[in-house]
Amino acid sequence: MEMEVGFLGLGIMGKAMSMNLIKSGFKVTVWNRTLSKCDELVELGASIGETPAAVVRKCKFTIAMLADPASALSVVFDKNGVLEEIGNGKGYIDMSTVDPETSTKIHEAITSKGGSFLEAPVSGSKQPAEAGQLVILAAGDKALYEEASKAFDVMGKKSFFLGQIGNGARMKLVVNMIMGSMMNAFSEGLVLAEGSGLNPHDLLDVLDLGGIANPMFRGKGPNMLKSNHTPAFPLKHQQKDMRLALALGDQNALSMPVAAAANEAFKKARSMGLGDLDFSAVYEVVKMHKD
Amino acid sequence: MEMEVGFLGLGIMGKAMSMNLIKSGFKVTVWNRTLSKCDELVELGASIGETPAAVVRKCKFTIAMLADPASALSVVFDKNGVLEEIGNGKGYIDMSTVDPETSTKIHEAITSKGGSFLEAPVSGSKQPAEAGQLVILAAGDKALYEEASKAFDVMGKKSFFLGQIGNGARMKLVVNMIMGSMMNAFSEGLVLAEGSGLNPHDLLDVLDLGGIANPMFRGKGPNMLKSNHTPAFPLKHQQKDMRLALALGDQNALSMPVAAAANEAFKKARSMGLGDLDFSAVYEVVKMHKD
Amino acid sequence: MEMEVGFLGLGIMGKAMSMNLIKSGFKVTVWNRTLSKCDELVELGASIGETPAAVVRKCKFTIAMLADPASALSVVFDKNGVLEEIGNGKGYIDMSTVDPETSTKIHEAITSKGGSFLEAPVSGSKQPAEAGQLVILAAGDKALYEEASKAFDVMGKKSFFLGQIGNGARMKLVVNMIMGSMMNAFSEGLVLAEGSGLNPHDLLDVLDLGGIANPMFRGKGPNMLKSNHTPAFPLKHQQKDMRLALALGDQNALSMPVAAAANEAFKKARSMGLGDLDFSAVYEVVKMHKD
Amino acid sequence: MEMEVGFLGLGIMGKAMSMNLIKSGFKVTVWNRTLSKCDELVELGASIGETPAAVVRKCKFTIAMLADPASALSVVFDKNGVLEEIGNGKGYIDMSTVDPETSTKIHEAITSKGGSFLEAPVSGSKQPAEAGQLVILAAGDKALYEEASKAFDVMGKKSFFLGQIGNGARMKLVVNMIMGSMMNAFSEGLVLAEGSGLNPHDLLDVLDLGGIANPMFRGKGPNMLKSNHTPAFPLKHQQKDMRLALALGDQNALSMPVAAAANEAFKKARSMGLGDLDFSAVYEVVKMHKD
Repeated sequence: MEMEVGFLGLGIMGKAMSMNLIKSGFKVTVWNRTLSKCDELVELGASIGETPAAVVRKCKFTIAMLADPASALSVVFDKNGVLEEIGNGKGYIDMSTVDPETSTKIHEAITSKGGSFLEAPVSGSKQPAEAGQLVILAAGDKALYEEASKAFDVMGKKSFFLGQIGNGARMKLVVNMIMGSMMNAFSEGLVLAEGSGLNPHDLLDVLDLGGIANPMFRGKGPNMLKSNHTPAFPLKHQQKDMRLALALGDQNALSMPVAAAANEAFKKARSMGLGDLDFSAVYEVVKMHKD
Repeated sequence: MEMEVGFLGLGIMGKAMSMNLIKSGFKVTVWNRTLSKCDELVELGASIGETPAAVVRKCKFTIAMLADPASALSVVFDKNGVLEEIGNGKGYIDMSTVDPETSTKIHEAITSKGGSFLEAPVSGSKQPAEAGQLVILAAGDKALYEEASKAFDVMGKKSFFLGQIGNGARMKLVVNMIMGSMMNAFSEGLVLAEGSGLNPHDLLDVLDLGGIANPMFRGKGPNMLKSNHTPAFPLKHQQKDMRLALALGDQNALSMPVAAAANEAFKKARSMGLGDLDFSAVYEVVKMHKD
Repeated sequence: MEMEVGFLGLGIMGKAMSMNLIKSGFKVTVWNRTLSKCDELVELGASIGETPAAVVRKCKFTIAMLADPASALSVVFDKNGVLEEIGNGKGYIDMSTVDPETSTKIHEAITSKGGSFLEAPVSGSKQPAEAGQLVILAAGDKALYEEASKAFDVMGKKSFFLGQIGNGARMKLVVNMIMGSMMNAFSEGLVLAEGSGLNPHDLLDVLDLGGIANPMFRGKGPNMLKSNHTPAFPLKHQQKDMRLALALGDQNALSMPVAAAANEAFKKARSMGLGDLDFSAVYEVVKMHKD
Repeated sequence: MEMEVGFLGLGIMGKAMSMNLIKSGFKVTVWNRTLSKCDELVELGASIGETPAAVVRKCKFTIAMLADPASALSVVFDKNGVLEEIGNGKGYIDMSTVDPETSTKIHEAITSKGGSFLEAPVSGSKQPAEAGQLVILAAGDKALYEEASKAFDVMGKKSFFLGQIGNGARMKLVVNMIMGSMMNAFSEGLVLAEGSGLNPHDLLDVLDLGGIANPMFRGKGPNMLKSNHTPAFPLKHQQKDMRLALALGDQNALSMPVAAAANEAFKKARSMGLGDLDFSAVYEVVKMHKD
């Protein structure tokens, strides 16, 4: 039996995700602010909804994958938005990366109209999205999570149900905080290797054979040594996530001195004009010296 | 053609390494302070040398794997030690983990007698030693490194030649510094997850599916959550390596604020009496709060 | 010529400040939520206003000294509040310690009615208030600042005009951030002295004779060594100010690693249940060890 | 009754200190490596000793004020040095700033010959030396301390007896560690003030009126804002003292995260080529940003 799914937002991520749904046999109705972006999906068999409201009217549950909190709010609250048609028996799943406040606001609006809501931010970018290898961090309505599990199986290699609304966003913050501290630890190690007469490429090889080998060191290390910081995840966003993670800790009186030190290094990188580069550019701040 | 190799020190590591040499067809002459420990090797085909000097007299090159700097020095400098028989055409390879000063001292003594010397500390403990999967960080005499490469291939999955004496020890410090900062980052993340209402086991699962997945998080995480810190690498040794790595950076005016913050956390752990536990016990300091 | 001044709020600070005004010849009209608190002032010659609005109606400018942002807002916006009578030719001076947002809100309301506004938080507590030795950090309407300068001269030893609204609050944050880092530096020094066999009382004496001698070390040091942390400025408020100062820096991409480390130490102190003690209680966290 | 005192070393400090002794009626015999530097003292009434040994032979106790550990050792151990004439009933007081190891070495040599020894480093530079306003941090032989107390009263405003040898040096390290952290706290505050729209000169004025007012902020602040870092205490020496203080803490498992963060900032300043400027130059590192 085919499932009818709505999909709002056909950016790089949304396009890849909705394609995977179509290819796996879901009946998908798509909408995008620039409607022409829907064409490629229509060729593969998608229907078009003229507005977010129209999509929701038609489908039992609707997935959104939008660029930022402002778009995520707009699609729900604006004229012809999700809110006009959501209600009993209908589900809305926001897979955009937004802050807990935005998520909570959408959650309250949807549920006050009788709809069910799931936040489900993902870990992974373009390539895992295309390969159906995302990691999905869902939180909110458990029944909707189960209803959507077949779709999640198609889009991701693994999905988690993390409990109450906000927990998806929180989990991403925790992961990104660890990642940011690790990037600093890695940068310091590379600079120490270079500064004390070792070949930093040897360090990369040694690291990759040991207990702390990981894809990030492997993937970014060689580029960092060439000062190539083409942005995959911009430093200013990484620093924002460190700040939010530290604020989350502050609310709970948790002292996290290593994350705090890493955060200050990212801030220094911002002040040196590196905010739009990849977060690996913190390496340049660690390395900075007078010749 | 069989190669004649000497092997000094049959502790957990040395025994596993020399066994692998014998099984691969090397003709091995072993010595251990407690000679009875040689029996098992003799059954497999090893010869016994009565003293370090006797082993060196017989073999073209001799490997040592000793417990600490004191033993490493004693085997070379004491009566019937390596120094009495080393000379032109003979090589000595110290695979023990020692500080650069000890290594330099041995290096100078060996080479002043005409012998060639290689320091070759390893990354990996008992299990990789048994499996011939060590990572070997060699530095010193390049020709001896090449002569020993067949033996290294048997004992390790990969060996590196890192240049001048001291670089093997330095590489270990850099790796351990990164590892120590990562352990703090990981601990802070686990505590933040718990403290903000997430299931830390979910965090372990999410981490293991993403770009910073690594064997250390995977192996130690579940034990840490049970406050099981059975020592694989004692915290006091990790903190000593952080201190030495920071001192190495200080010599070169390298600022490493994240490693410095991690070092202070390890010191706090020492002051709380956790120095003999695994270095993962820094988690207890991060988590510490009044109920 | 006598000046007519309104005064809202007769807590510890407000009472001392308004008394000094009366004693210096100002004609003062007072109001307090609990009106009986006005009696003592009336005996000295004050008039009573029944409501904040009544005070403003009568006086050319009115000073407020309230306990917290909530009271500061209530006195302005509630029924019979300042806003009902403020207007052209009348000034309002809020000397309470509030956040920049609260200050901005009051500023906008007052000026939209044609009144002039000054925020003027003070540095100094009960004793300097009684002695007329406060330090006044004013910002906002320059003309009102000059009009009020005679009153400021009576209440304080020095007043500053710091420019646009918010700058008074910001100056307090900067000062408190430095103070918080200094308290950590001081605590670490005391603990290092004790831990390395010195008499920490000797350290207090040596410090007080040198280039970094200051009233805070002199006043708090002996109590800290007795673990006496009777709250003058509660640790949780100090930590809040560190957090806000760091956030102010974050907005401007300013990296402040020492303040960040100090902030994490204060957070640890909060997590150990010390938030209601004086901020000197961070000393207990630095000192904490297993016997 | 006149006291006979020897004085070795007539640099800026030693000259000022020995002059004060002469002016107060001490009979002083001076020696300096460049003997011509003695002339001015001779005019005031000093005698000359041809060698350190000659001075010690003549005087009951001898004070040394030398430039560095190397000079302090040389004066004692070289030919015609202190050691040749020291013995029972004679005292030697080294007021140079040296590390605990140097001090201990001198201590052992002097006492093994039967002499008594006091280390007595000072806090304060040229101007306090001239004014007899030094702070003297003595440790070692208590009887010699008492014997020398009249001389200390002349040279200093206050002297401390701190117990066993090494404690004088340790006290200086603790004081300098606090001072280094404070300098960072101060720099961060100045930069935060500037970066958030405040006048940093106002900050200097506000600080100087409050509880953390201190001579260092007052004296260095205005120069720092002009980026004038003429060296009074070179940054590289300050950083060395932070490193030694942290090492002292490490020996005792004391965690000092704020000092560690300050130390890393000083290292960064060294790496930016600021090591020979005053330690206030760490301000330039905090301020550093891309325009």
